[in-house]
Amino acid sequence: MRVKHYTKRDFPVAKIRRFLEPGPIVLVSSCWRGRTNIMTHGWHTVMEFTPSLIGSIISDDSHSFEMIRRSRECVINIPTVDLATKVVGIGNTTGADIDKFEVFGLTAAPAVKVKAPLVDECYANFECRIADARLVTKYNFFIFEVVKAHVATAPRFPQTIHYRGDGIFMISGTNTRQYRRLFRPEML
Amino acid sequence: MRVKHYTKRDFPVAKIRRFLEPGPIVLVSSCWRGRTNIMTHGWHTVMEFTPSLIGSIISDDSHSFEMIRRSRECVINIPTVDLATKVVGIGNTTGADIDKFEVFGLTAAPAVKVKAPLVDECYANFECRIADARLVTKYNFFIFEVVKAHVATAPRFPQTIHYRGDGIFMISGTNTRQYRRLFRPEML
Repeated sequence: MRVKHYTKRDFPVAKIRRFLEPGPIVLVSSCWRGRTNIMTHGWHTVMEFTPSLIGSIISDDSHSFEMIRRSRECVINIPTVDLATKVVGIGNTTGADIDKFEVFGLTAAPAVKVKAPLVDECYANFECRIADARLVTKYNFFIFEVVKAHVATAPRFPQTIHYRGDGIFMISGTNTRQYRRLFRPEML
Repeated sequence: MRVKHYTKRDFPVAKIRRFLEPGPIVLVSSCWRGRTNIMTHGWHTVMEFTPSLIGSIISDDSHSFEMIRRSRECVINIPTVDLATKVVGIGNTTGADIDKFEVFGLTAAPAVKVKAPLVDECYANFECRIADARLVTKYNFFIFEVVKAHVATAPRFPQTIHYRGDGIFMISGTNTRQYRRLFRPEML
């Protein structure tokens, strides 16, 4: 499948739940002492609109764990289905052995507010700083604040991939329903 | 849309990520002092296989917050698309005013290990106890242990609903890809 190129714009950090709440697999990129890395990541949740907080379980077995813990930064990138085989490859290799940007043919683009690079081929990139690390030792649970967001101008509903375990992904995208009229305005 | 009836079986609590990691909207049911309630909930993440841990942001504005905090229990239920209008209705009303099981025509079935009821019409029901409440005051963040799981015997891939904000849901279910051969066995 051919890799897409997305044109992106700045996006309000308080509204990124639109892309994370549906539960996509994401790529987390990091930088520490001049080396970069990427990991595949599925255990995350939106925690707050303002400040824009995300909670993430990042295994202490992973090469990214210490890079993120020490640099106190990362970028959460949302890939679409055209990147699925790369996403699986990234999840099944370790940055201790290889340069993942190079091996998987991805572009490390400069971020605005953090040193960790954006994965340019992704639909969206959220620049993050650690906001609270108190549950890292016990649960590997990081609370990040999104300090800058970049989102593709189109399509409105990206074909994200959602992990079902056992090597199986559900593909998002086309089947959508609108219930706006049933919502109280403050619940939207 | 006609409400489905699912036949369910016990399911290993260490494997419930198969249903939660894709990111569905869930219904959280609770019981406190003989009254029950249901809330619609989208901000959750898997945290660990064993013990089976789930992290959830439950707003302290919600009627369920104190019921769950005091009883230290809840059930996380996974609805499918046939329940979508009920899910929206449950999210836009408060248990302070109404009995949601009654108003939305849902069945409160007895759980095995907790007092909170199962929402019987859902595809899966995960009985939970609070495992760690230390981030509840600051972030409304509960860590639950799943102590018992009930999952429908079919279909294998439920048509869950995933919230995109702004009143819009993505429907899961049919478009699935298998990448099992690309995974290292311990990553599945």
